[in-house]
Amino acid sequence: MEIKTSEIKKIEDELSKYIDSNVEFILKIGNYILSSGGKRLRPILVLTFSKGLKGENSPNDYPIAIAMEYLHTASLLHDDVVDGAKLRRKKPSANVVFGNDTVVLTGDYMYANALYLFSIYGNIDMIKNVSNTVKKMAEGQLLELKSIGDLNITMQDYYQIIEGKTAVLFASCCYVGAELANADNKIKQNAYNYGLYLGYAFQIIDDLLDYIGNKNKVGKPVFNDLREGKVTYPLLSIKDKLSQDEKEFVKKTIRTQNPDEKHIEKVVNMVIDKGGVENSLGKAKEYVNKAIRELDIFPQNEYFSNLRKLAKYIVEREF
Amino acid sequence: MEIKTSEIKKIEDELSKYIDSNVEFILKIGNYILSSGGKRLRPILVLTFSKGLKGENSPNDYPIAIAMEYLHTASLLHDDVVDGAKLRRKKPSANVVFGNDTVVLTGDYMYANALYLFSIYGNIDMIKNVSNTVKKMAEGQLLELKSIGDLNITMQDYYQIIEGKTAVLFASCCYVGAELANADNKIKQNAYNYGLYLGYAFQIIDDLLDYIGNKNKVGKPVFNDLREGKVTYPLLSIKDKLSQDEKEFVKKTIRTQNPDEKHIEKVVNMVIDKGGVENSLGKAKEYVNKAIRELDIFPQNEYFSNLRKLAKYIVEREF
Repeated sequence: MEIKTSEIKKIEDELSKYIDSNVEFILKIGNYILSSGGKRLRPILVLTFSKGLKGENSPNDYPIAIAMEYLHTASLLHDDVVDGAKLRRKKPSANVVFGNDTVVLTGDYMYANALYLFSIYGNIDMIKNVSNTVKKMAEGQLLELKSIGDLNITMQDYYQIIEGKTAVLFASCCYVGAELANADNKIKQNAYNYGLYLGYAFQIIDDLLDYIGNKNKVGKPVFNDLREGKVTYPLLSIKDKLSQDEKEFVKKTIRTQNPDEKHIEKVVNMVIDKGGVENSLGKAKEYVNKAIRELDIFPQNEYFSNLRKLAKYIVEREF
Repeated sequence: MEIKTSEIKKIEDELSKYIDSNVEFILKIGNYILSSGGKRLRPILVLTFSKGLKGENSPNDYPIAIAMEYLHTASLLHDDVVDGAKLRRKKPSANVVFGNDTVVLTGDYMYANALYLFSIYGNIDMIKNVSNTVKKMAEGQLLELKSIGDLNITMQDYYQIIEGKTAVLFASCCYVGAELANADNKIKQNAYNYGLYLGYAFQIIDDLLDYIGNKNKVGKPVFNDLREGKVTYPLLSIKDKLSQDEKEFVKKTIRTQNPDEKHIEKVVNMVIDKGGVENSLGKAKEYVNKAIRELDIFPQNEYFSNLRKLAKYIVEREF
């Protein structure tokens, strides 16, 4: 997807414009995490859907797009506390620099500020969608926590987890973008579905990269999920092909804190040998195609053409 | 204030009605903290303002009143994580029972669920007020964290802290109650001010009880604030009467982790000897009177008469 540099620059310029706290820490931590990069995919989704439907962005589109980035930022802050993360985008994570307590509260501020921006620049329909999204984000993460070390999680559990982690916020961004253009319910629902399927594909690829990526590419150590006992698509997709002994070995490995590197490698090799990589790529492509089909009812212009390219790029980004 | 038992019972009955998660932990933790008591002061403020202005509560008043209790619950959950609390209302606090990570996410869910309820049963004006309130709650707590061990905090800092801790949520409850009765802006502003002043009085008394209360009465160890390095009204109000040596002694004590009991006692005695108790009581009464005066423009009925009694009760509750 070709995003104009001027557009990204406008988002970057406005990013800290809507944080007006007199509490020094909020500005500091907010800027620390906001300035540490990221692709600004969420505001871009908002702006592109809105522009694609109404021709150009109006002034209110920007605070709403940025509110979505604030929601993402808030969830990253709380994620880091929950995961006890040490690194985020190759920088020490905010919890390491500022402490868990400060980071929890700054996350709360960012969530509340996003909703506040919606109450000023948005409308009740957006707030209903977005607050429901934040509920699902928390639920997904809780389910992920609860499922650590559990090989018996279902595909349904997995999808609820990745919905909360990635897909539902993508979906909300597209929905809100369409609502900014006063789209009807059918259009908004398709926008939402595009984001949801895009998010599934994105997260399945992310989970796959943890198996086959390398440190430079994904910005975090590989096999991290497995090491933390997180069962993701590649493993889930071949679970039924494991022998009883293999299953027991995998269970033991994912239940162990700091498992032996050789045990991790053995599990990774099982997943690769039994087709986990192909399964994941196949499933991600399936969701990319589903996402693209949701765009059929939208105007055939450069913006929606870009959104089709974006979806395709998701599965091609690291291969 | 006389609250009818039937009213409290209706609130208690509806408390868990609006949590509909399929994630087991959310129900468990939500019920753990919701069932651990509390005076339900926040929903009562919502319901009383609404009823006082329109004669009786309508069905939508209840989910909104309960959303306010959810906001309170969410903030208690995050407070416990931030403070590293061990006890809450004489039970082990949720973070001790369920772990910090789970509690952070359940707090997020409760915040988001409250906003979601506002988008269904409330309106955009309420959401603007309430999301701004949640911002101020986080800011106040951050400021409190940052101010630990600092005798140089200003009265303005102190008021921002207690606004975030208590007063702004009380204020929002009253505002939202008035909005549920379609009150005009002047009435809503006075309702808000009543809650704000009530909250100031409430928190000043709470801070005073930490100096002169006992474990049975306040449900937590006395001198806790001082022990944690928190400078509150009783000490702030006599700060300028301390000699240079006394100031240094106080500074050293509040900067020490787990200070000597005798040092704590010495500081407490300074505060008492120099009139910190009378100052606090006097200031709390001042705010009670300010709160009551805000009610002058409201109908003279039993509900607003009860709200006057409630304000008076705040300063009399433990003496």
